This record gives sequence, structure tokens and C-alpha cells, in this order.
Amino acid sequence: MAEKHVYRFGFDQDGKNVSEVAGATVDEAKWITGGKGANLAEMAALGLPVPAGFTITCQTCVEYSSAGNVWPEGVLDEIDEYRKDLEERMGKKLGDSDDPLLVSVRSGAPFSMPGMMDTVLNLGLNDDSVQGLIKQTENPRFAYDSYRRFVQMFSSVVMGVSGQLFEDAISAKKAEKGVKLDTELDADDLKDLVATFKKIFSENVDVDKYPEVNENGVAVFPHDPLLQLRLAEQAVFGSWNTERAILYRKQNKIDDSLGTAVNVQVMAFGNKGNTSATGVAFTRNPADGTNERYGDYLVNAQGEDVVAGIRNTEPIAKLPTEPGLEEAGKQLFHVFEILEDHYADMMDLEFTIEQGKLYMLQTRVGKRTALSALKVAIQMVEEGRITKEEAVMRVAPEQLDQLLHPQFDADDIKGRDVIAKGLNASPGAAVGAAVFSSADAEAYAEAGKPCILIRWETTPDDLHGMVAAEGILTSHGGKTSHAAVIARGMGAPCVCGAEALQINAGEKTCAIAGTDIVLHEGDIISIDGSTGNVYMGEAKLVRPELGGDLQTILEWADEVRFNEERGRVMGVRANADNPEDAQLSRENGAVGIGLCRTEHMFLGDRKQLIQDFILSDDKAVKADVLKKLGEAQKGDFLGMFKAMAGLPVIVRLLDPPLHEFLDSPRELEVEIAKLEAADSALDAAKGTIASKDLDELEAELEKAIATKRELLKRIDSFQEANPMLGTRGCRLGFLYPELNHMQFRAICEAAAELIKEGVDAQPEIMIPLVAFSEELKHLRWMCEDDIKAVSEEYGVKLEIPIGTMIELPRAAITADHIAKYADFFSFGTNDLTQTCLGFSRDDVESSFMDTYLEEKLIKINPFATVDRGVARLVELGVKGGKETNPNMVCGVCGETGGDPDSIQKYYDLGLDYVSCSPFRVPIARLAAAQAKIASNGGPAKLN
Amino acid sequence: MAEKHVYRFGFDQDGKNVSEVAGATVDEAKWITGGKGANLAEMAALGLPVPAGFTITCQTCVEYSSAGNVWPEGVLDEIDEYRKDLEERMGKKLGDSDDPLLVSVRSGAPFSMPGMMDTVLNLGLNDDSVQGLIKQTENPRFAYDSYRRFVQMFSSVVMGVSGQLFEDAISAKKAEKGVKLDTELDADDLKDLVATFKKIFSENVDVDKYPEVNENGVAVFPHDPLLQLRLAEQAVFGSWNTERAILYRKQNKIDDSLGTAVNVQVMAFGNKGNTSATGVAFTRNPADGTNERYGDYLVNAQGEDVVAGIRNTEPIAKLPTEPGLEEAGKQLFHVFEILEDHYADMMDLEFTIEQGKLYMLQTRVGKRTALSALKVAIQMVEEGRITKEEAVMRVAPEQLDQLLHPQFDADDIKGRDVIAKGLNASPGAAVGAAVFSSADAEAYAEAGKPCILIRWETTPDDLHGMVAAEGILTSHGGKTSHAAVIARGMGAPCVCGAEALQINAGEKTCAIAGTDIVLHEGDIISIDGSTGNVYMGEAKLVRPELGGDLQTILEWADEVRFNEERGRVMGVRANADNPEDAQLSRENGAVGIGLCRTEHMFLGDRKQLIQDFILSDDKAVKADVLKKLGEAQKGDFLGMFKAMAGLPVIVRLLDPPLHEFLDSPRELEVEIAKLEAADSALDAAKGTIASKDLDELEAELEKAIATKRELLKRIDSFQEANPMLGTRGCRLGFLYPELNHMQFRAICEAAAELIKEGVDAQPEIMIPLVAFSEELKHLRWMCEDDIKAVSEEYGVKLEIPIGTMIELPRAAITADHIAKYADFFSFGTNDLTQTCLGFSRDDVESSFMDTYLEEKLIKINPFATVDRGVARLVELGVKGGKETNPNMVCGVCGETGGDPDSIQKYYDLGLDYVSCSPFRVPIARLAAAQAKIASNGGPAKLN
Repeated sequence: MAEKHVYRFGFDQDGKNVSEVAGATVDEAKWITGGKGANLAEMAALGLPVPAGFTITCQTCVEYSSAGNVWPEGVLDEIDEYRKDLEERMGKKLGDSDDPLLVSVRSGAPFSMPGMMDTVLNLGLNDDSVQGLIKQTENPRFAYDSYRRFVQMFSSVVMGVSGQLFEDAISAKKAEKGVKLDTELDADDLKDLVATFKKIFSENVDVDKYPEVNENGVAVFPHDPLLQLRLAEQAVFGSWNTERAILYRKQNKIDDSLGTAVNVQVMAFGNKGNTSATGVAFTRNPADGTNERYGDYLVNAQGEDVVAGIRNTEPIAKLPTEPGLEEAGKQLFHVFEILEDHYADMMDLEFTIEQGKLYMLQTRVGKRTALSALKVAIQMVEEGRITKEEAVMRVAPEQLDQLLHPQFDADDIKGRDVIAKGLNASPGAAVGAAVFSSADAEAYAEAGKPCILIRWETTPDDLHGMVAAEGILTSHGGKTSHAAVIARGMGAPCVCGAEALQINAGEKTCAIAGTDIVLHEGDIISIDGSTGNVYMGEAKLVRPELGGDLQTILEWADEVRFNEERGRVMGVRANADNPEDAQLSRENGAVGIGLCRTEHMFLGDRKQLIQDFILSDDKAVKADVLKKLGEAQKGDFLGMFKAMAGLPVIVRLLDPPLHEFLDSPRELEVEIAKLEAADSALDAAKGTIASKDLDELEAELEKAIATKRELLKRIDSFQEANPMLGTRGCRLGFLYPELNHMQFRAICEAAAELIKEGVDAQPEIMIPLVAFSEELKHLRWMCEDDIKAVSEEYGVKLEIPIGTMIELPRAAITADHIAKYADFFSFGTNDLTQTCLGFSRDDVESSFMDTYLEEKLIKINPFATVDRGVARLVELGVKGGKETNPNMVCGVCGETGGDPDSIQKYYDLGLDYVSCSPFRVPIARLAAAQAKIASNGGPAKLN
Repeated sequence: MAEKHVYRFGFDQDGKNVSEVAGATVDEAKWITGGKGANLAEMAALGLPVPAGFTITCQTCVEYSSAGNVWPEGVLDEIDEYRKDLEERMGKKLGDSDDPLLVSVRSGAPFSMPGMMDTVLNLGLNDDSVQGLIKQTENPRFAYDSYRRFVQMFSSVVMGVSGQLFEDAISAKKAEKGVKLDTELDADDLKDLVATFKKIFSENVDVDKYPEVNENGVAVFPHDPLLQLRLAEQAVFGSWNTERAILYRKQNKIDDSLGTAVNVQVMAFGNKGNTSATGVAFTRNPADGTNERYGDYLVNAQGEDVVAGIRNTEPIAKLPTEPGLEEAGKQLFHVFEILEDHYADMMDLEFTIEQGKLYMLQTRVGKRTALSALKVAIQMVEEGRITKEEAVMRVAPEQLDQLLHPQFDADDIKGRDVIAKGLNASPGAAVGAAVFSSADAEAYAEAGKPCILIRWETTPDDLHGMVAAEGILTSHGGKTSHAAVIARGMGAPCVCGAEALQINAGEKTCAIAGTDIVLHEGDIISIDGSTGNVYMGEAKLVRPELGGDLQTILEWADEVRFNEERGRVMGVRANADNPEDAQLSRENGAVGIGLCRTEHMFLGDRKQLIQDFILSDDKAVKADVLKKLGEAQKGDFLGMFKAMAGLPVIVRLLDPPLHEFLDSPRELEVEIAKLEAADSALDAAKGTIASKDLDELEAELEKAIATKRELLKRIDSFQEANPMLGTRGCRLGFLYPELNHMQFRAICEAAAELIKEGVDAQPEIMIPLVAFSEELKHLRWMCEDDIKAVSEEYGVKLEIPIGTMIELPRAAITADHIAKYADFFSFGTNDLTQTCLGFSRDDVESSFMDTYLEEKLIKINPFATVDRGVARLVELGVKGGKETNPNMVCGVCGETGGDPDSIQKYYDLGLDYVSCSPFRVPIARLAAAQAKIASNGGPAKLN
């Protein structure tokens, strides 16, 4: 076979590093041997104590899965060679009854997927080798505890038997023995449990899916370590496609086709008594970035115990003070330095100390909050480890959302009692109804009700609920617990290990120890992931100001971004429709308004005016209403242009179909039907009572009905089968030129007035929904007439660029023609996506979009991240536009304008700016800088 | 000036042809000097008697119009040189008081636009030169008649004064003199009229728009012939942009930017007594193609009199029998031969005989009916004048529509009385309500009521009404009258000159002379443009069979089309949804079904079934309904595949959004509101009457309301904001895979059954509305499973190609990806146009489309002829598809697939076939042949 499917890592018997490295760098290697495997080889190269092992490649997983869970030809032989090699290196054999080799089997995908993939420890144990383990350790209790753990883990993880059955068996054993703790069970008890566990295995494994079935048709727990190994490897591959793994990848935009590697590694035991321990740590604080050792450990425990949060852990700083662990603790802290020196980043690591000896089981670049990402990046620059450009690349733009999201108002929160306090595991503030299961969290979210998910500890099965909730609150688990890690990754506020919470998930209540408070489902609470505080009731949320580290990174980002020698400059503007948002945009660093939607100026009090304009036949009424609308619009523009003085403000003409301003004809018709019924009733009543009043009442009623019928007729005349593709955008301007003139004049007059006052107003006028160059030509003429007229009236020379939205496929395709009449193009990717894909957003997001994402018919929601087809249209549009008019300014003002992945594409397609929500401007600034760096040879390095 | 704006035609004083020819061929020259000018020069070159003159180019018109009616620099001088040259050639001067030169000024665009453009005759007359004319002719009456005609024509045509004012003045003069006929007025009367006419001129000309205003502010009729000339030339240019000219061009798809030329030509007088005459003629019969001289003349008349149909004319064959016109008549018939020999086509010509001497005023290729076009083309091949390919190019495909349109059923028509008989001016049968004005015709058409327009004679102002009407019936005018010419051009049936009609347009009635019949507006009549017969009531229409000349031309077309050596072959298929249409398609020459829309199979009785499927929650109900639908569909497919045995039938899966099969929720809600009102009334009644029956009634009513409310909820859940872009097409298949399976199986089972019977069934399966390659991949898998299953069940090897509609911009843009899973592409240009342009057809055709066409924002209705942007998407789609899969079969199945202009584009874009309505298949066959010829070097010529 041409392709290599297995790579060795770690040392030979002489202590020489014999790792086979899969790529020139760890980043290259991780695509082949996964993150874990690549970093194990890397650590061995650094001389760090890595237990020996080998890695089966990600590609093997892909081939195995796509062949319907069948091993590619020859691979099993290749693995077996590496198994033998490992046995030789260790001088031990799997299943040996004297000195057995035990291994762990773990997954390791190219991207870190915490809690997602399954692990099997102590593999190699059977009734023979357990004797060998006893011989070697002279510790039968340890040996049988390891054996029962293996049977339990293998059964649940590899064969899918419910873990609860094993927990129940342990409980039964403890009851039988009259003890409370697992540790009170002795070797014989554990030996009994091994037998019981194997029985549970036999009773619960599906014989059709299992190879070791005896003559009585019973599934027998595998004795052969090689079979154990193969089944475990298969389970790892299988776990790539579990529902929760798929959901995590969707959440994190990880490609489903990468596959995962399998790492087979010699066991190191953290549970061999009090000079053994296991832990996870970060070289710096991943929550806030403080340069301190961060993490937890447990003495006499196996690795999974720490992450699972079953026992409360000790802080890592205490490790060198533990009797018998002093040396290993110091050595670990030295490893921290070696790793940071080598990786020039904050690292996350897992270790085990077996009887005083340190083993490194994993390292990777540490996941962190936005706060931490910023601080660590800045520290690294200050420490001379990385360049500013590298620092800019270190912060995930999407993560900044956390910082830009609401915090509690300081004054409001001061007056509130802290009802509980936990660990500040993931920063940010959240308010919502208390819910006690993931299903409830999802139900609340679907009903549009914000909620806080309260759990003893979360498990991977809670992922759906965590995504749905505003924040997560747990009573158990440390800062590296599942809840904490996942919440940080998602940017959701999280308070964990709040021990005062006495949760009764069945009853959906939670008492607060030391108080008489009992939370019920639906009670509103507030949690602060930055402090760990929990409050009753709805605390007030405020938007944070930019500052500190964020400001520093954004300044560095802008330094790169505006450096013309470094590459093409791409600006960031904001979409804002009122002076307040314009002001916020400016504060957030926008260099202009890319889209001001004037239809938002026709709501509220003004809705009646536009209704009158649409429905009236009376020219005088229409003219009067237009005048009032014009004055109101002028007021809006005065505020916007002033707020953005010196910067361009692109004003888009009225865009939506007019019926959006009108009442629902269906409701009106039902109302009429009711009035008519009342009229009939009145008529019937008149048969029994004769009264002049009744006659008058009836006459009035009938008049009202007639008026409403007439109104209904008018309103119906504006209904459309597909309003998205109907009479809207610039099309309105040909049917109602007076609406255009009103808007043109309001813009021009506002600008002229400000310019006379010395304010540098810079409006630009944008014509929406152009499909044909002739449309733009005619409207441009119309607009130029108004600009000229207002210039003359005010004695001010107005120079207002006129451009168009490119939001229809035809506009993009024929951009070279349209460009003849445009000073700028703004790509409206929302509508362009709707028409290019035939996706009415209102309809598809509530109907088949979820199905499409789940069945992987599409990889991303195309309204969030620009679709490949839409990007191609943008490309054609930019190319056509700049060919005809080399000075054409091209920007994007759809929602994807604030999406980092899309921003990278837009940089590469040659756009001059992106425009997004004012709140996302900082994100877009960072993303634009990263896009530029990525597309111009990567970040500058230290010499 | 680099560009030449004026060209000379005709002879010098020595009889030598001194024409300046504007192009290598007449067809080239006509773009420069217009059709009339180019042909005048051509006739002079043939030695035919053409009065001398010069032509101002079309380009001059374009420049003049686009500069806002300002003459391009230097052009007036250039014209003046040619005017002097003409005076020299004739030895006469304009305005000369001894022997004045008189000229006509006529328009002449590159395309013939009958009745559209304005003409001024006798130009050069004034109070001085009229004396010269008297001297030369010794005929004062003729001179003053010419003078008053000139003043009248100049005033109305050039200055826009109402012609009625002059007619009234003539009537007044006749009343004053006590005479009835114009001819009874003597020279003095006419001289008086000249003075009166000039007064009318002064009183009605807008002094602001006229250069000759005297000191009293009065507009004076222009004395200066050079001013007369300039104003007339300007009027010709202005007439290019009159409403009726624009409408004609829109109807005939003539480019607005071509402009018209102006021809200034020495007058020949057909009104110099009984040895003078004027007429128009065709070298063959333009109505049915018979090889006979065809046309009309009037003795002692000017040219406009013939066309205007004011006096009834004599048939051209009689001309050589008129005393004093014998020689000129013979000479004219000789000219017919010269022209046909030279042009190798049937020609249309205008002539004037001035005192026995023949002058040729115009010739052009004659407009003709489809019947005539076919026959003449075949005759020309038989006569050895042209090749078969040239013959194929001679028939306008769109015209064939006339022949394919209904005729009267022979049996039905036999029993009907002919109430009137006119000339068979434009063939075809029409039935409709009698209307007496163009406005009424339009109103009827808008109301969806077919109508027949009845007029004394039509004028260019009737064009709107003629377009709106099914057929045209006039009481006056010959076969070359306005009504006849225009109707033939439009392919509308026309009976003209039906003298028995006594029309009273004011009363909207028409009595039939010799009967007691009086037609009123709205009475249904039937007219036969092929026989000239008019019937009362609604005659039965039948579709004609292909045959005769049409069959011959189509065979010649197919000969070229299927000749691989001549170029790429493009097939013609049909869109058909039932066995009858499939049969018709086959008879009309379709080589397959390009689109079978299965949703048409869910209507009628089956609508209830699909409703049950959609609305029921009961799996058993759904399954049962699906089974019934599957059986019904299988029946449809059996019929279709059998009808098309040996030819491919592309079946498209269910495409429309499901709510299209459901009731209107709005109507249902109104119904509920009414029931609820009844319920309230019942409740109130119970207050006064206690009755068990009432209780039961109320309970029943409330149950009905609850059921309907539940139904409404279900129906509402299927409503979409933009159904066009919603849950339809292949998207349905992911939400309701069982619907797909039902359809897949019905297709496969029908095919398998037929194949077992020995019928060569060739179904192909088409997946609609694909946007992503993954969609097609998944549905293809699903389909292949069913094909395999049915193959096994029936023991028949089914090989069914699977393809997709390309009807979304994304599909076209990413066709290279989609092609991985497609055996064929069918471009659905209807939906592609909707999404590419953002035009919801249901909405835009009733709202802004007309405005867009009128304001020239778009040149064509993009649903009729493929839009440039859509064509570009088709191009990208074909390219991408064939790149990935060189065997990809690409076709078009949108409505544009039957449009000749679009077919030309599709040929050039490399499509393998077009598919259209069964009735349009012959048109598409011809158009496809022409496209191939045009794109491969033009028609083969005779050696």
C-alpha cells in the first residue's frame, strides 16, 4: 500500500525518541495524525516524558467510514506491526500473564473536540493478565479496580451498554457489604464485580453485532487483547459520527470529512496510591488570561475523573505541596515553560503521575475566552515571543462577541443579593428562566423565552440544551469540567461548581443551601460568568465599552489593515438607520455607514402617513403626506450625517413592497365578515323591536362595512404572490417617482443645510434592486436633477455619489453594464442569497433549512456565511464593475458582511469594504485584518 | 466631417445613373440610407425609371434625436449641397416662379414600417412657384389643388394641426358652392381654400415652436421652400418617436435606436388627369402566394389615396386596359419581372404614372402571410431562383403561428349563413364580440373577452385595438389598405372592404345592407380571413393539420437541421403532460418530451387524494392515499411512454409548493368567522326559545367550527411568504421522501410493464429546483434504489437517465459540481428568469412590466424571449455541465424554448435541444434550422 496508515511516537528502550513525524510542523501533522497524536510526537521530540504508542491516521477513519465501517485493505496488518513494535519497545506483551502491557485507546481529531470522543483505558486486561498486573504491582485491589473499570468502560463506550447498569451493580455491592464509598470495596469485592460486569455485558450486548458468541449464543466479553484493541479502535472511528460529535462540528464549523485518528498508548496509572495523581492544566488562565498556572488534579485517580467533575479537584498550584508529588509537581511546572517556549502560546495539557513519575498524556493550544485570548496574545508580544501580527491572528473574531455582549449594569447589580457563588468558568452575563434539563432548555428557546440551564454537571448529551440556553449553571465540576470547557468554546456565560445548589432535576426545583430559597422551573435568575455570582430575578444588562486589551488588539489589527504596503486595504463600515446607531458605529471604529435603510424611518408615527400616501386617490392628500414624510426624513438625515461627519453615509431608497406598510387583508376580511354578521343580527332584531335608533345604527354599520370593503379592495390590489420578487426596490421609483423625489430632496437638503453650517456631510445615494442598467440610468438622471436643484436653492455645491445595491443575480452578471451609471456597488448578500439559491429566508429557515443542515445537503447556513455560488456572483460583480469603472467602490452590506469566514472571502474577492451591524464592527475589523494577513503570506514572524 | 450624411440617387440630365450606393448590397445599404432609399438607388442601377432625389441617413436621425432634436454640425450644409445638385440635375429650382421643382419628403427606416411614418408631397409650392406650375402645366386647377394639398399636408403632418379643420373648410366651400364632390371645385375655389388653409395654419400653430412669426406675433405659413424642406425633414425625424411608431417597433421587435432616413425626391404626379394614375402592387399574391400580379391603382390620384383606402381601387391586372395607360401598364408588368429576377423574391412596389409615363417610387421585399411565405419560397426554389436553405430562411417562424392557429370546422361552417363578404385580406379564423372602437377592443381584451374590431377603415391610431382584437373587419379599403397590411404583419385574421357593412361607430351598431340584421356591440360574430366570409354567432374552431407547403418547408428545415456536416444538431422536443399532447407532439415532429409536469396529474379527482396526504396525520391514510396516487400516475405514464415509444420522455418530479393543492386559508377563516357569528346568534336565540333541537344544532355547529379551525391551522402551516422561493421542487423530497418514492416507482413500473410488452419506453427522471450538488446526489441514490428494486421485481433491466432542471442561478453557476450527478440538464428558463431578475411572474406582469416596456427600461418581455443575463447563466450552466460530463445532454424547457429569437441564442450557446408547447414544435423546428444556418455562414447559395 502506498499510503502510510500508522505512525509511531515516543521512545525506544534506550530512551531515544523514535517518533515518526507526519508533517514538517505540528500544524501540518495534525491533519494526518490528529491534534493529540501530532502533539505527542512533538512533546517526545522536546524530550518530555510521553508514554510510548502509535497513531492510526484520520484518513483511515475516513476510508473506514465511507466503506460502511470496513477496514481498508492491509491496514489491520500495518496496525499489528506497530502493536508488535510497541511491545518490543516496552519489553511487555498485551495479555501477558506475567507482566502485561496495558494501553489506552483514544481519539484525536485534527481539531480539539472536548468531551466529544470516547476513550478506553486499561485495555489488555483479562483473567490471565490481571494476574500479571497483580504480580507486578503486588496490589490486587488496584489490579481488580483497573480490570472492572476496563470492563465497564469497554462495555459502555465500545459496545454501548448503559453505564447505569454498572453503577447499579456497584451500589448493590456496596449495600451488600454495608459500605458507602467505592474505596471501601476490597479486592475480592472488585473481583466479584468484574464477574458481574461481564454478565451484564453478555446480557446486554447485541449478539448480531458482536463477533465473540459462544456455542450457547451468548456474547462473551473478549478475552483476546487483540480483539479488544480492534473493537476499541472501531469504536473510536464510530464515535466520529455520533449525533453529539456531528452537532459539535456544526457548532464549530468543523468539516465532517476530516475524520479522527486513534492513539494507542501505554497506560500510565494515576490511581496507584497517594504518590499517583492525574490532572489537566493550562499554562495560563484560559478564562481571563492571567499569567498563572491554572488547572486541577486529583490524587489517586484516573484521568477521566478530573474532566468528568465527579470528585471536586485541587488547584494545580498546590501540586508541589502534596507529599510524595513534590518532585513531579516541580517537573510539571518546568514542562509548562518548555511548552510555552516551544509553542509560543498558552497550552492546555493532561498529565498523570504514576508513583511519583510524571507522564505527559496530551498537550494542545489552549482554548480560551475572548478575554483570555486578548490578554495572552498581548502578553506574548510583550514577552517577545510573537509579533503583533501573530497576536492579531491569535484572537478568534467570533469570540469577541462575548465581550461585546451585555454585562450587568454596575449600579443595578450592586443592590442585588448573591444567592449563590460558583466558579467564574466562562465570562459574560446572562438572564433567563431556570430550567433543569436540556429538553426544557430547547423548549424554552423555541418558545422565544431565554433560559439558564441548571445541571449537577453537564455531559456531552447536554450539548443541545447548552446551545439553546443563555447561560449555564452547575453545582459540580471545576474550571476544566465539561460545562466550563464547552461554555467557553461557545462564548456562553457559565458559572460552575456552585456547591450551594441542591438540584432536584426530577421535581424541577433547586434549593439554595443556607437559605430558604427554592428555585422552580421558570423562575428568572441572573448569572455572571465573570464573577461566578448568581442572582434572583432579572438583573439589568448593559453593553460594555471597548477598551483595554480589546482596544490594543484592534489597534494592532487596524495597523495591519490600513498599511497599504502590507496589501490591499479593506474598510469596515456599519449598517445603521438612526443617529444613535451611527454614533455607536463611529465609536466602534466604523469608517462610514454602508447601509442606511430608509424604510425603518417609515414606521411608528409615520406609518399612518405612508399608508395615506399609498391608499389615497386624492392628489392633495398625497402631496401633503409626502411633504410631512420629507420633513421627517430630512430630520433623520440631519442627525445621521452629523454623527458621521467626515465619513460617507450610504442612504438606500425605500426598498420594501408597499403592502408591508398596510394592514393584513385577511384580518380585515374576517373583521368585515363579523360586522356583516352583526348587521344581519341587527336586521333580525328590527323584526321584533322597531326603533329609530336601530335604523341609525344599522345605517352606520353598513357605511362602516362599505368603507372597509373599499379599503380591502385597495389593500388587496397591493398583495403579491411573491413580494420578495415583486414591486419593490427601484421598481417603486418608476411607479411612484414622487416617492423618489421626496427622498432625494430630503437627503440633499439635509446635506446642504449641514454643509452651510460647516459640517462635512457626506451622503451617498443607493438605488436598490437594480436588475437592468437602464433602471439605474433613469433613476440617476432623476436624482441628479434633484441634486442640481437643491445645490442651486441652497447655494452649495453638492457632490453626492450615486450607486446601487447588487442584490440580484442579473445585476451581478451584467455588472459591467450597470457600472456605467454607478459610482459604487454595494453587494446585498441577503437578497442575493435568496435569489441565487431560491431561498426565501422567511420560509426556508422555518421549514427545510434544519433538515438540510442535518442531512448535510448544505454545510452552512448561507445567510450566516456567504455561499459558494453567491460568492461567485460577488466575484463576477466586482470584476464587471471595476472593469467598466476602475474607481468603482465595492462593498458588502448583507449580514455576511460581519461574518469572519465571509470577510476572508470578501477580502480575496477584492472588495473595498464590508458593512455590518454596529455591534459587530470590532469583530469585522479584526476579521478583516486577519483576512489580509492570511492572504498576504501569513503573519510577520520574529527574526 | 468624416461621416457622410447624404446620398444621391437617380439619374443626371443625360439619363446616366449617378446614385451613390451606401453599401455593397441593398441589405447593407438599408442600415445607412433606409429601406426605401437603398432600394431607390438599387432600382436606378437596374435602369428603372426612378425620379431623382437624395437620402439623408438614419444615423443623422439618431444624432438629431439624441441631441434633443438639434442638427449635427455641418449636416444642414451637406443637405443644401445635395439640394443644389438635385436642382442642377433637373434644371429646375425649388420655388421658381417659372418652372419650379417640386419634391416629396418621405421617411424610410431600415425596416418597413407601413403607415407609421409621415409623408409630405408637393413641397416647394408657394404663391410664386404655383404660378410657375401653372405656366408649365397650363392647368391652374391642378396647380391650386396641388398647392392646397401641400398646405394641408404640411400643416397636419409637419406642424400637427388637426386634419379635420381642413376637411371642414373643404366641406364649407362645397356647401357655399352648392356642390357635392371635391372635383366639382374649380381653380378659384381651390385658390380660396389655399388662403383659408393658411389662415387655419396661422390660427393653430404654436408660435413658440415655429420660426416664422411676423411682427404681430402671427405664425405665417412658410414661403421659403428651403424652410419648408427643413421643417419637413425634421418632422420625418420626429415621427420616428411617435407613440404609434414605438408601438409598432415593440410589436415587431425592431430596435428603437436604428432611426429613419429621409428621402427627398422629385415629384411625379398621378393626378394630372386620366392618363395619370398611382398604385401599389405585389409581384405575387401576398395573401396566399399565388404567382399572379396583385395590387390596386387609382386613376388621377396621388399615392396616399390608394393606401388610405378612401376611394375603392381597381385591380392591377386591369391597368393595361385603361385608355392612355396601356403602355405604362405593360412597362410596369415588365418591371415586375426585372425586380423578381434581380431580388429573387416577391416584391412590393409603388408607382405613379404621370401623363402616361411610369415612375417607380418604391420597392421592397413584400410582406406576406405565412401561407404566402411558404408558397412563394417553394416556388422560388422550383423556379431555380434560390436554394432550399434560402427558402427555409424566407419564412418567419413566428408567422407559422397563423397556420397552426384554429380554422373553422368545415362541417360546422357549412350550415351557417354568410351575412357579409369582404376581401380575404389576412388568413385565419376568428370569433369574438363585435366592437366598434380600439378603446373598446382593448377593454374587451383586458376583461378576457375575445372581440372582433369593426371599422370603416383602420388608421395607425387603431394599432392598439388591432393588437387587442382577435380579428379585424372593415367596410372599406383594398388588400393593400392599412388594415390588411397590418393584420397580415401581425398574423391576425382580417376581412376588409366588406361593403355591406353600414357602420355607426357612435351608436356602436352595424347594419348589414340587404338584410334586416343589425349588429350591436357584444354580439358574437365569426370572420374567416381566408375566404372573406363573415358569419353571425360563434362558429366552431378546429386546429389545422400540418401538410402541403408547411410540411415541405419543415422537411427542408429538418434536412438542414439534422445534417451533421452542416453543423451542430439541435433537436426539438415538446412539453406535454398527457398522452394526447404527447401524441400531438409526435405528429408535429418532436423527437421527445422535454418536460412532463407531474403536478398536472394531481388535479381533478386526484386533488382530494393529495390534500389527504398533506393534511392527514394518520400514517395508514397517508399510505393508502399514496398507493392510489401511485396507481393513477402509473396509468398516466403508461399512456405517455407508449405514445412516445422509442423517444425520450423526461418526467419531472412534483414541483410546486404543497399549499397550491390546499384551499385558501383566507376564505376558510372568513367562513369560520361567519359560522361563529351564526353560533352567537343561535346562542342569543336560546335566550328567548328553549329547545333541545337548538342545543343539538349549536353543538353540531361548534364541532364544525372546531374542525375547520384545526384545518385552518394545518393549512396555515403550509403558507409561505414567497412560495416561489420556498418549500418546493426537490426540497419536498427531503421532507416527504415517500412522495418521491411513489413517483419513482410509478415511472419505473410503467416503463417495466411496457418493456415487457415490447414497447420501447424511454423515461428519464428529472429532479427540479436543485441548488446544491448534494441534493441531486441524495435524490439520485434514492431513485437508483427504486430503479434497481423495480428492475428486479419485473425482471427487466431498466436504464433510466437521471437529470436535473437548472432553474436557479446557483445551479447554473455551480453546474460543474452538479454535473457530477446528472445525466442531463434541462434549463428551466421560466424560473431562472424569475430568480435571476427578481421578477415574480405572477406579480410583475400585472404591475410594473408594462411600465418597464413602455419606458424602455427593458426591450423585451424576458419571459417571452430569453434575457441577456439569463442567457449568460445558461451559458455558464452548459459550459460547467459539459466540462464535468462531456456526454451531458443540455436542453431548454422554459417557454423561451419555443421563441425563435431565443432559439437562435440557444443554438449559439451549444444546447442539444429546445422543448416547447406541442403546438409550437413546427415553429421551433423552423427556427432551429434558421439558427443553424445563420450560425454556420448563412444559407447555401445557388452556384
